[in-house]
Amino acid sequence: MEKLKKYVSVKDEDHFYHQGAVELLIFNFLLILTILTIWLFKNHRFRFLHETGGAMLYGLLMGLIIRYVTKSPDVESGTVYECEKLKSGPSTLLINITNQVYEYQYKREISHHNVNGHQGNAMLQKMTFDPSIFFNILLPPIIFHAGYSLKKRHFFRNLGSILTYAFLGTAISCIVIGLIIYGFVKAMVHIGQLKQWEFHFTDCLFFGSLMSATDPVTVLAIFHELNVDTDLYTLLFGESVLNDAVAIVLTHSISIYSPKENPNAFDAAAFFQSVGNFLGIFAGSFAMGSSYAVVTALISFMHLTKFTKLCEFPMLETGLFFLLSWSAFLSAEAAGLTGIVAVLFCGVTQAHYTYNNLSPDSKMRTKQLFEFMNFLAENVIFCYMGLALFTFQNHIFNPLFIFGALVAVFVARASNIYPLSFLLNLGRKQKIPRNFQHMMMFSGLRGAIAFALAIRDTDSQPKQMMFTTALLIVFFTVWVFGGGTTPMLTWLQIRLVLVGVDPDEDLKAKAASQSASNLDKNTTKAESAWLFRIWYGFDHKYLKPLLTHTGPPLTSTLPEWCNPVARLLTSPSAYGDQLKDGDTDYIINNDELTENYEPSAHIPAPAQDSTGSIQATGKEDIQEGDLGLGGYKLQLQHTAHQPQKNSLA
Amino acid sequence: MEKLKKYVSVKDEDHFYHQGAVELLIFNFLLILTILTIWLFKNHRFRFLHETGGAMLYGLLMGLIIRYVTKSPDVESGTVYECEKLKSGPSTLLINITNQVYEYQYKREISHHNVNGHQGNAMLQKMTFDPSIFFNILLPPIIFHAGYSLKKRHFFRNLGSILTYAFLGTAISCIVIGLIIYGFVKAMVHIGQLKQWEFHFTDCLFFGSLMSATDPVTVLAIFHELNVDTDLYTLLFGESVLNDAVAIVLTHSISIYSPKENPNAFDAAAFFQSVGNFLGIFAGSFAMGSSYAVVTALISFMHLTKFTKLCEFPMLETGLFFLLSWSAFLSAEAAGLTGIVAVLFCGVTQAHYTYNNLSPDSKMRTKQLFEFMNFLAENVIFCYMGLALFTFQNHIFNPLFIFGALVAVFVARASNIYPLSFLLNLGRKQKIPRNFQHMMMFSGLRGAIAFALAIRDTDSQPKQMMFTTALLIVFFTVWVFGGGTTPMLTWLQIRLVLVGVDPDEDLKAKAASQSASNLDKNTTKAESAWLFRIWYGFDHKYLKPLLTHTGPPLTSTLPEWCNPVARLLTSPSAYGDQLKDGDTDYIINNDELTENYEPSAHIPAPAQDSTGSIQATGKEDIQEGDLGLGGYKLQLQHTAHQPQKNSLA
Repeated sequence: MEKLKKYVSVKDEDHFYHQGAVELLIFNFLLILTILTIWLFKNHRFRFLHETGGAMLYGLLMGLIIRYVTKSPDVESGTVYECEKLKSGPSTLLINITNQVYEYQYKREISHHNVNGHQGNAMLQKMTFDPSIFFNILLPPIIFHAGYSLKKRHFFRNLGSILTYAFLGTAISCIVIGLIIYGFVKAMVHIGQLKQWEFHFTDCLFFGSLMSATDPVTVLAIFHELNVDTDLYTLLFGESVLNDAVAIVLTHSISIYSPKENPNAFDAAAFFQSVGNFLGIFAGSFAMGSSYAVVTALISFMHLTKFTKLCEFPMLETGLFFLLSWSAFLSAEAAGLTGIVAVLFCGVTQAHYTYNNLSPDSKMRTKQLFEFMNFLAENVIFCYMGLALFTFQNHIFNPLFIFGALVAVFVARASNIYPLSFLLNLGRKQKIPRNFQHMMMFSGLRGAIAFALAIRDTDSQPKQMMFTTALLIVFFTVWVFGGGTTPMLTWLQIRLVLVGVDPDEDLKAKAASQSASNLDKNTTKAESAWLFRIWYGFDHKYLKPLLTHTGPPLTSTLPEWCNPVARLLTSPSAYGDQLKDGDTDYIINNDELTENYEPSAHIPAPAQDSTGSIQATGKEDIQEGDLGLGGYKLQLQHTAHQPQKNSLA
Repeated sequence: MEKLKKYVSVKDEDHFYHQGAVELLIFNFLLILTILTIWLFKNHRFRFLHETGGAMLYGLLMGLIIRYVTKSPDVESGTVYECEKLKSGPSTLLINITNQVYEYQYKREISHHNVNGHQGNAMLQKMTFDPSIFFNILLPPIIFHAGYSLKKRHFFRNLGSILTYAFLGTAISCIVIGLIIYGFVKAMVHIGQLKQWEFHFTDCLFFGSLMSATDPVTVLAIFHELNVDTDLYTLLFGESVLNDAVAIVLTHSISIYSPKENPNAFDAAAFFQSVGNFLGIFAGSFAMGSSYAVVTALISFMHLTKFTKLCEFPMLETGLFFLLSWSAFLSAEAAGLTGIVAVLFCGVTQAHYTYNNLSPDSKMRTKQLFEFMNFLAENVIFCYMGLALFTFQNHIFNPLFIFGALVAVFVARASNIYPLSFLLNLGRKQKIPRNFQHMMMFSGLRGAIAFALAIRDTDSQPKQMMFTTALLIVFFTVWVFGGGTTPMLTWLQIRLVLVGVDPDEDLKAKAASQSASNLDKNTTKAESAWLFRIWYGFDHKYLKPLLTHTGPPLTSTLPEWCNPVARLLTSPSAYGDQLKDGDTDYIINNDELTENYEPSAHIPAPAQDSTGSIQATGKEDIQEGDLGLGGYKLQLQHTAHQPQKNSLA
């Protein structure tokens, strides 16, 4: 008897293993379907559905099936048991049931109103995985990849505008959404459409901050495919990357904003504390991320110079790179900072310094690895979003609230883009044209981050309603706006370089002409040049030589008395590698910049001519193209003075 | 008040997130340390500690720290609560504690004797992760990689011996260990060293089967590095790969072996049912794995011929490849078969067919991806093994039992290798020499699979004792035998080709000389040639043309009346690609084989000359070298008649 029982228990356990396999299999199946569909679409040049949209659609269908086809097998569920002996919820609960001890693990605290029959559908429950998986596993590779593949040159040229949109714009968006939603909620309570829940202004701001994270992955993919104007691409990409970071820290700060007495009244102390929190968390995460990257750079630097052996083991190099980058995320989380922000800046710094120290094999491996992880994680998240519409068990659909939120989101996007563009254009030599502004307005899609922030807290009813609303807004924007990108580009007459020609045949010609048309813009000084110049000088003179093999040797940039230290820290190859400086593309046509570093007697100045030719070294270009999905290499030489305006639009 | 509570709950949740981050960070930290150490060791050519051994050592130290430095913060733990209302353990338990509902998730059933104070140390608990993570996440990439990187040519040449060692050898090992342990346990009970637990013969066989899974990863790495005789490498590698599969299915079959009445008596019906289970599970898993690979091959085949576009998107191709391979594992698990076996044969089949259809970019991506995943997963598992010694909470150390198990393991290995080698040598033209046999005996390390099988079931006290013992045997064999590999090779006078010379400089020379010394062996017909020949003919005539672009067109191999179907199924490029047949290395010096396919009039026969030159095409060779860690390319031409015996030993 005892024996038999054991066998039964073993079989039960096996059943549990298989359960895990079934859910993973469902995800695999959805992803395979998505890939096959997207491949078909790419093959026929349908651009109205991006892979993320497809993943969401399949997830939705699968969620529908799981919800209405599978039965709830667990009759005990939905019943609340009393336990008088316990004072608080321990992390592990041992329960004696008919003389057999079972171990239960704490999952969460749930509100009384959430205790309903659906809780027990084991399948639904298994499919709704822990939000911490989003934050610890799925988001970091996406964000890191965004940082790692940032088009540095264009990014730094538009740094001022991007920072303005990202910081000021997100703050504006958050406040505008918060205010509109607050008004809407008040009105709804007034006309009796909404029960008098505790729906405070902070809740509205919380919603505002999470809905401010834009995710134009669909739009950017189409831009990339159609070779849309690089400045527009950079503005949008840079904004969306930084804006995620800002929105996450903002949400975090708002959620820990706790006014002392009346939560509706404005509490100046608490407010300033929140602002302080925001700045502290942001700066801390930034520092954490960059320092991990600097450590990686130093390790990989050491490898090349002193031991010169790690590059023989690209696997170890790649492994170290991967683990240190992930550690940046985890350390920030463990320290109470924001891991996403840390991993973003870690990615940017890795690309800027460490990348140059890696062996050629590792360069390719890391890029392909992160590209692949990004691809998988992105599609898993969008799949899951589709699933969540039917498998999440505490949705609260409120059509009026959803309508209000949609209005708020659009108004907020408009009051972010248009006023800020106007202000920026006052300072910019190279204006952001009207049609670019409309396109940026149109590209305010919501995606993974908004969803992840919303699902992180779904305890109270207002939070559940927000989650449902956020999910529907993601659906709406990804399908409608994502699908409408190509028509919108045509309608707004945004320059597409050589559209309609087979992208493979004319890739080089296209790249050449595009760069040529950008070049005449370059000759006008970019608006952020002063910021850029200061940073560039410091970076080129001190950081690059210290962390990589490029740039002038430290002995020439540091004051005389630092020479012994400088000699120790400079890579021996730096003296010889001057001509191979991977950063020449930074300084083209910025003659003022060349004054910033004085070539010492024995070192030839980096080759640069004032005719404006782009000396695109392989190094930087591989870095900047998105490998695999149609990356190309700039092969332009001396065409700057014959700008070919090839725009068809 | 209500408000405040919510904030507290949010912070609690945050605390939980950070917990997850801390544990992952610990693993990251351990892996980083491991990589740095190994890099240092490789740099100084220390070969007595492999990365897995290092990972285990660091895990052990970290486990020690966690165990004795962190405190148990949870006072409620270790207390068992009564619940009269419940009849069985539901998967989700809702409990009302002081008017707040908490959700608890079913974790496992635990025996009364396991209820002790340590249960509640949250840190320890978090560090001991779910065994299903091993089976669903960590093991599949390792096993797949083993299958995918199998050196096909040598593997098939030694197929008979490998199958004998793997099937017969593992069965012998299982029974011998089972018998010795059973005797030991009886003796221990007799002298009062062991309480009279229910320690049945099936339990002993269970232990025998799980301890029969060898994992000579350390030894193989050294072999690879030192360029040890390829036949020895292949025998050992092939045996260890297949033997894992056999041991897993064997363990599964034994665990569901349930004699009707007295569990100690021999029940013929139950025994034959177990044998049937074994065969059924093995065959089913094999079929599942290969069919997924065939589907992948067909999809990738379609891509190249009909749509010719997927190869433009290596990301999609890689993604599909990855997902379908993982699905093979998951489907087998979901169907109640053995995923590990499925994924192993999936890997072998993918390498044999699909690999040829992939674009060059995808070939490299898939290899690097799986190599990297294998590297990470392996080190995580070994790290975790180190950790488990201190963090697992229900160890039962019994020195006598451990000693008995060690003896049993060695006796079993000996009665596997020596008698089977003797039998095989009766049939083999090219004998397995004595020193190879000793080396194989010596290489019977235990590793990941034995550990994973043991941790899967630790409910009863005998199972816990087995787990502890298995863990210690893994430690012992990995450190002692793994570390002693290099001295052992010298002592056994096993040929190391050009040892002591810098491996990078003389790589090609070494490869050439090694192959040359192998060639004269090839001229003697390998013992498994008849099996090999039948398979080869079928594969070359029907499967290869159907699934890849190599081999003769189906129109020439199928009977006349099948022509319409054959024409449909043959790749148009097959007619032209005859000379590029990637499998020429299969058929060298097996002139009998060439009779198996009749070249049709318009197709030239694959180039092959009887002088015995290896026409190593790039395709197969890249496949066979382990990329990244010193892979090389065969560059031998017409050297067969001047065999250079370069063996230093």
